[in-house]
Amino acid sequence: MQYTTLTTLGEYRDTGPSRVLLLDSPYVKILQFTLKAGQALPLHKHDDEGYVSLTVVEGTGNFLDTQGKHPAKAGDHCLCPIAEPHGVEAVTDMRVLVHIAPPV
Amino acid sequence: MQYTTLTTLGEYRDTGPSRVLLLDSPYVKILQFTLKAGQALPLHKHDDEGYVSLTVVEGTGNFLDTQGKHPAKAGDHCLCPIAEPHGVEAVTDMRVLVHIAPPV
Repeated sequence: MQYTTLTTLGEYRDTGPSRVLLLDSPYVKILQFTLKAGQALPLHKHDDEGYVSLTVVEGTGNFLDTQGKHPAKAGDHCLCPIAEPHGVEAVTDMRVLVHIAPPV
Repeated sequence: MQYTTLTTLGEYRDTGPSRVLLLDSPYVKILQFTLKAGQALPLHKHDDEGYVSLTVVEGTGNFLDTQGKHPAKAGDHCLCPIAEPHGVEAVTDMRVLVHIAPPV
């Protein structure tokens, strides 16, 4: 059993988003990205099966897809086949919990 | 691409926790439980491989394990092998996002 306070997990860095791995397993990878205002995980995709699940833990920003930007705040969720382009950008400081199943 | 505002997903019901399925796939099942104050998902386990990931979206309560209770508030996370006993109880009205990989 592993308990984590996501709202204090990961450092805000001037150099770019930081990332903390919560679980690396054969079934699912769980990590949290911490982005300062203005930082982004640009639109990207993986040529694999499976899903990526993005949950905003703190802050506000936008989910990114091929249509453009979709506003995202704490408590918002984006579910995406991992083969479809996805990304996120921080408007304020922002933390995003990510589940990838199966891991890529 | 599926966008969801988790903070308004699911009904608070007098009769017990309600549940909304976000994804049922071969790789991962994602659902959200909505619990009124005092309601619980009692301690239980599944004799399977894999993990359950619990993320508190709203409210306060306790994660449950064989040791007892572990305080849980919005932004708190519990990661558990699905074969280990786990549960959650709501102290205030509470929403909990659940990822199960692989699905059971």
